[in-house]
Amino acid sequence: MTAAADTPTGTDARRRHDTTVRGFASDNYAGVHPEVLAAIALANGGHQVAYGADDYTLHLQDVFRAHFGDRAEAFPVFNGTGANVVSLQALLPRWGAVVAAETAHINVDECGAPEKMAGIKILTVPTPDGKLTAELIDLQARGWGDEHRAQPLAVSITQSTELGTCYTAEEVAEICEHAHERGMLVHMDGSRIANAAATLGLPLRAFTTDAGVDILSFGGTKNGMLLGEAVVVLNPDAVHNILFLRKMSAQLASKMRFISVQFEALLTGDLWLRNAGHANAMARRLESAVRDIDGVEVVRPVQANAVFALLPREVSERLQKNYRFYFWNELTGEVRWMVSFDTSESDIDAFAAAIAEEMHKH
Amino acid sequence: MTAAADTPTGTDARRRHDTTVRGFASDNYAGVHPEVLAAIALANGGHQVAYGADDYTLHLQDVFRAHFGDRAEAFPVFNGTGANVVSLQALLPRWGAVVAAETAHINVDECGAPEKMAGIKILTVPTPDGKLTAELIDLQARGWGDEHRAQPLAVSITQSTELGTCYTAEEVAEICEHAHERGMLVHMDGSRIANAAATLGLPLRAFTTDAGVDILSFGGTKNGMLLGEAVVVLNPDAVHNILFLRKMSAQLASKMRFISVQFEALLTGDLWLRNAGHANAMARRLESAVRDIDGVEVVRPVQANAVFALLPREVSERLQKNYRFYFWNELTGEVRWMVSFDTSESDIDAFAAAIAEEMHKH
Amino acid sequence: MTAAADTPTGTDARRRHDTTVRGFASDNYAGVHPEVLAAIALANGGHQVAYGADDYTLHLQDVFRAHFGDRAEAFPVFNGTGANVVSLQALLPRWGAVVAAETAHINVDECGAPEKMAGIKILTVPTPDGKLTAELIDLQARGWGDEHRAQPLAVSITQSTELGTCYTAEEVAEICEHAHERGMLVHMDGSRIANAAATLGLPLRAFTTDAGVDILSFGGTKNGMLLGEAVVVLNPDAVHNILFLRKMSAQLASKMRFISVQFEALLTGDLWLRNAGHANAMARRLESAVRDIDGVEVVRPVQANAVFALLPREVSERLQKNYRFYFWNELTGEVRWMVSFDTSESDIDAFAAAIAEEMHKH
Amino acid sequence: MTAAADTPTGTDARRRHDTTVRGFASDNYAGVHPEVLAAIALANGGHQVAYGADDYTLHLQDVFRAHFGDRAEAFPVFNGTGANVVSLQALLPRWGAVVAAETAHINVDECGAPEKMAGIKILTVPTPDGKLTAELIDLQARGWGDEHRAQPLAVSITQSTELGTCYTAEEVAEICEHAHERGMLVHMDGSRIANAAATLGLPLRAFTTDAGVDILSFGGTKNGMLLGEAVVVLNPDAVHNILFLRKMSAQLASKMRFISVQFEALLTGDLWLRNAGHANAMARRLESAVRDIDGVEVVRPVQANAVFALLPREVSERLQKNYRFYFWNELTGEVRWMVSFDTSESDIDAFAAAIAEEMHKH
Repeated sequence: MTAAADTPTGTDARRRHDTTVRGFASDNYAGVHPEVLAAIALANGGHQVAYGADDYTLHLQDVFRAHFGDRAEAFPVFNGTGANVVSLQALLPRWGAVVAAETAHINVDECGAPEKMAGIKILTVPTPDGKLTAELIDLQARGWGDEHRAQPLAVSITQSTELGTCYTAEEVAEICEHAHERGMLVHMDGSRIANAAATLGLPLRAFTTDAGVDILSFGGTKNGMLLGEAVVVLNPDAVHNILFLRKMSAQLASKMRFISVQFEALLTGDLWLRNAGHANAMARRLESAVRDIDGVEVVRPVQANAVFALLPREVSERLQKNYRFYFWNELTGEVRWMVSFDTSESDIDAFAAAIAEEMHKH
Repeated sequence: MTAAADTPTGTDARRRHDTTVRGFASDNYAGVHPEVLAAIALANGGHQVAYGADDYTLHLQDVFRAHFGDRAEAFPVFNGTGANVVSLQALLPRWGAVVAAETAHINVDECGAPEKMAGIKILTVPTPDGKLTAELIDLQARGWGDEHRAQPLAVSITQSTELGTCYTAEEVAEICEHAHERGMLVHMDGSRIANAAATLGLPLRAFTTDAGVDILSFGGTKNGMLLGEAVVVLNPDAVHNILFLRKMSAQLASKMRFISVQFEALLTGDLWLRNAGHANAMARRLESAVRDIDGVEVVRPVQANAVFALLPREVSERLQKNYRFYFWNELTGEVRWMVSFDTSESDIDAFAAAIAEEMHKH
Repeated sequence: MTAAADTPTGTDARRRHDTTVRGFASDNYAGVHPEVLAAIALANGGHQVAYGADDYTLHLQDVFRAHFGDRAEAFPVFNGTGANVVSLQALLPRWGAVVAAETAHINVDECGAPEKMAGIKILTVPTPDGKLTAELIDLQARGWGDEHRAQPLAVSITQSTELGTCYTAEEVAEICEHAHERGMLVHMDGSRIANAAATLGLPLRAFTTDAGVDILSFGGTKNGMLLGEAVVVLNPDAVHNILFLRKMSAQLASKMRFISVQFEALLTGDLWLRNAGHANAMARRLESAVRDIDGVEVVRPVQANAVFALLPREVSERLQKNYRFYFWNELTGEVRWMVSFDTSESDIDAFAAAIAEEMHKH
Repeated sequence: MTAAADTPTGTDARRRHDTTVRGFASDNYAGVHPEVLAAIALANGGHQVAYGADDYTLHLQDVFRAHFGDRAEAFPVFNGTGANVVSLQALLPRWGAVVAAETAHINVDECGAPEKMAGIKILTVPTPDGKLTAELIDLQARGWGDEHRAQPLAVSITQSTELGTCYTAEEVAEICEHAHERGMLVHMDGSRIANAAATLGLPLRAFTTDAGVDILSFGGTKNGMLLGEAVVVLNPDAVHNILFLRKMSAQLASKMRFISVQFEALLTGDLWLRNAGHANAMARRLESAVRDIDGVEVVRPVQANAVFALLPREVSERLQKNYRFYFWNELTGEVRWMVSFDTSESDIDAFAAAIAEEMHKH
């Protein structure tokens, strides 16, 4: 706990946490980037029309179009599950199903929200690295016209994936072409899309709009926002009625200006890319630092802001006393170390040193 | 548009609105109270566990218990529709229905979210003033055990109502007793509960916990927050599993500390009551100011922060060129003037003068 | 209980009821018309493709087209709730709502199936006689484009209505025209459509296809079938994908030939009309017989196979010892006497005599 | 087409199929067993209370209790998908998920009805033979208390399975014990439960009630009924409210006597077992007959009424010109030959001869 002096005047709330502590559990553990917080203050004061007819949300269309092309339409929502459920409903008729990797967030981390809020069936495919391919998709993409089968009319891919890997622009394009040829539309869960862009060294549209993605859940929270994601329609010929779907899914913010202005802060300049690039660099720094520690194995490619590693379980458990992180797989003991926009080089170095030290004791 | 000088440095976002303009359209048009914004800054920095295991959300339980009793449990969510849909699911089995006033927000303003997200049937009752009574409830509360009828197992009341009226504590207690005797649980949509408390001059628990309400949608946004409501379980004997319902309804914030600390700013001292009391006073000031204007009739009791009035439609339309507000009923021409925590006395006086002037021209 | 001699050999089942007893509770209390039962036997034996690709279901298309025009498409389902839920899903997008009379079966008698199976919001309108009109529809048909309102994109009318009344062909046409002008599609719940046709003296298509109805729940069960209804698409330009909706709503019969052949038995000749016409005549006979009994008031027009009457509650309760029927309205004591295809003239006369006798005792 | 003389008088329907043709596509292609049809006739005539309060459905409770124990409660429904969706809803709260084999009918053959009608998430597990085990269940049965995971609170097994295999009573008991220890309830999809009983040589309760199954979808249609399944509650301590779930899922038959009496015909004596035992014997006869044909391989144990075989695709396609059957796996060319209660020894022998002949040509 920091000193009372840290508590600003002018509010009855108190600071309750040590602002110097950072861990490796999740990029959701980080707070708000100062430039984003400044943007919120900027949008405050006076009245603005509620529910998205404010000046910030109107302007936001230009902001997103600069990144995703002139036909993109952005709809701010609250969180990733909300963005995904709205997007999938927009792609699927009542009898539709979506093909996704077994590890997809929509399948394993949303408490069944796609099924429960919208009756969406998820047809899953095991993957080695969290990435779908045309071939993998075809394991489930079949049975069109057969009324006994929920119709696979969409594909959902995550970029970067839940396993810290990235699709190349070509891979996304191949998936989209494959899906479209079969009458399926493509959703990208871009909860960490900025990390992918940083890794690929490509503009956002290169592996989204230009690759044929139809709708995107654009992630703001993990990229430094207080809260907020956006459903981005990239193919307005095929995707409609987000306004209704957003509201009926309880994802319509009344004071939307405060979500929109955060996106403006991220996306107008290069803050989004700085944040993501920094996080990615910290992940690689961590990977480098642990690579040579005997008994620690980095088990997945580090293509975004996560490092997956195998090390002795008791070492992990001792480390967890000082550093927060999660076991990814309880059975194998694989752990996930996640870094975020605010992770510092010294955070990495100290953590790597602690790993080395604990391994040494082992 | 204000001068460029108003734009803070340190963000790529720009101020896009005139912070001196306020209208009478909705309490959602207002921004964030400065003390709430200060609280957000306070909670920033460092890492905090995501999804509600942070220090602010933990502390929030004490904050809510101070107002609602020792057994209250608070679950922050994003918005009012989300709070309502989570709450109603907690009260109702799959075959359940909720009795509500025809004018209830859950019935008319949520794009069918209760039906669409959760299959909840709403059994509506016409009311004179937006308020249910035991007698009105009984128009729909029947048919238990008859499998052909969705079972009316909950009642939902709004406090203060969509028509600017308030239930007394006794009225709430009577409804709860009546409902409980029939095996029904009671939800209160408290999107504007602070305004009701200010009007009634009672502590929050007097007309909620102590009156027998089982679950509450506690409104933060209209009371000066950036964004955030809370599902508050008042009767933990009857209401369970909000954690799952919240997540599967896409209402679980990752960086929850930033919602929780806003509630802390509101509810630790009296900011919530100051904001609501001020808004109510502004509504009464407006009522007083227009009461004596010939041709303007205030048509509903002013018991919260709304004034409903009848005046010539063309007068309303001329006024709307300078002041935002909505027609409440397109057929009758009834308008709703809504004030908020940031409405000033001079806002009221200028608006009332404008009304008088336009009526004079009429 | 009838004599053991009534029990056919060749089955382990036994007859458990007196086949001479008939009441006035519901047209669902009747059994199967002998010609329908004969048809079932006819379709038995050998193998036929399951799920509707059998010869009987194929032929059924011609049978329905003879009645509803060359573009009609018939999809057998199990029951009325199923037919209605499938039909409404076909008319409505996820964000849709249907306008219906407060007394509509979809609103009061399906345990919320439209809401629970499909998230459909029902916007209800009070009516004097169970019939919607353009004016009544407009009480709810509004708010298109407003994302806060579940979009009223369909109208559902019941023919004959739950109150024993009928729409004229002109009334249906007016409703359809009105709805279509507003972008709404029209569903007819024809659970007792045959009774309406018999009353109107019109071919079925005159007040359905030709009047502009888009989709129909065609009732077989109450018209003498063992079990079975049909979703009939009348406007295939606007209504699609019934195959998927039927299956995902658990309404796809495997041995469909046995539902289809029952419809063939009804609809190839005039059995459907004989059954309905007879029932209607029995209702009128009952009305005539009780009209002159002091203290018994027939309170609604008798335009189908139901008679609604007011008489002293204790008289009704004494009658119920020998004759099954229901109170329609527990508060007013209004009763509903329902007749069916197998009600005989002597059934009516005996019942009317019993009413007269009990009233006399009163 | 058979001769016109086959057409009974007394109905406008006509016989449209050759009653001597039988194939190997599905046990749903068969018709109604004559004893079942006789039972339907028996229940006809006069009036019986609708919706399950008739004498046949009342008696049915005794019929089912004789097989499943004194606490069993049977609820007739229309079809297997309906029985499954009602059963799963009874076992699961809104946030629940069910663990099932990847090949389970609920997962692959119901157009997503569990997801779409009830928001149920299905957690699938690959199996070698369509059968779950405790170990396989544990691949998905985890994460209780974690709000991000739809809670695995039920297991569904199919008996006999979609792959023609059977669980022993011990295997079922082990699954139930394992599930119950983890707080999960067990559903059995018994669409072909009679075939399993015949194979196991056990009374029905031995591998259901006595093994710990909580709720059962009891299959009537494939066992010789015209149409009808039953939801059978075996553990009334844990499973409730089927009446409401059945109605809201559009599975409540009005003239229920006609479903119930069919079950009576099957289950009072041994018709159910004769039918199933005969079908099983025909499957084994087919297996024996093809076992020695070079190039035909029976690839799964024949433990019920299905034979799965591998043979050259063009042979299969030639055979299909005269005999209906399906490819089970388009990729491998595996076919499924299904027999039913009405398959004769000569049907088998002729088919086996045809297979031999076509293989010989190959």
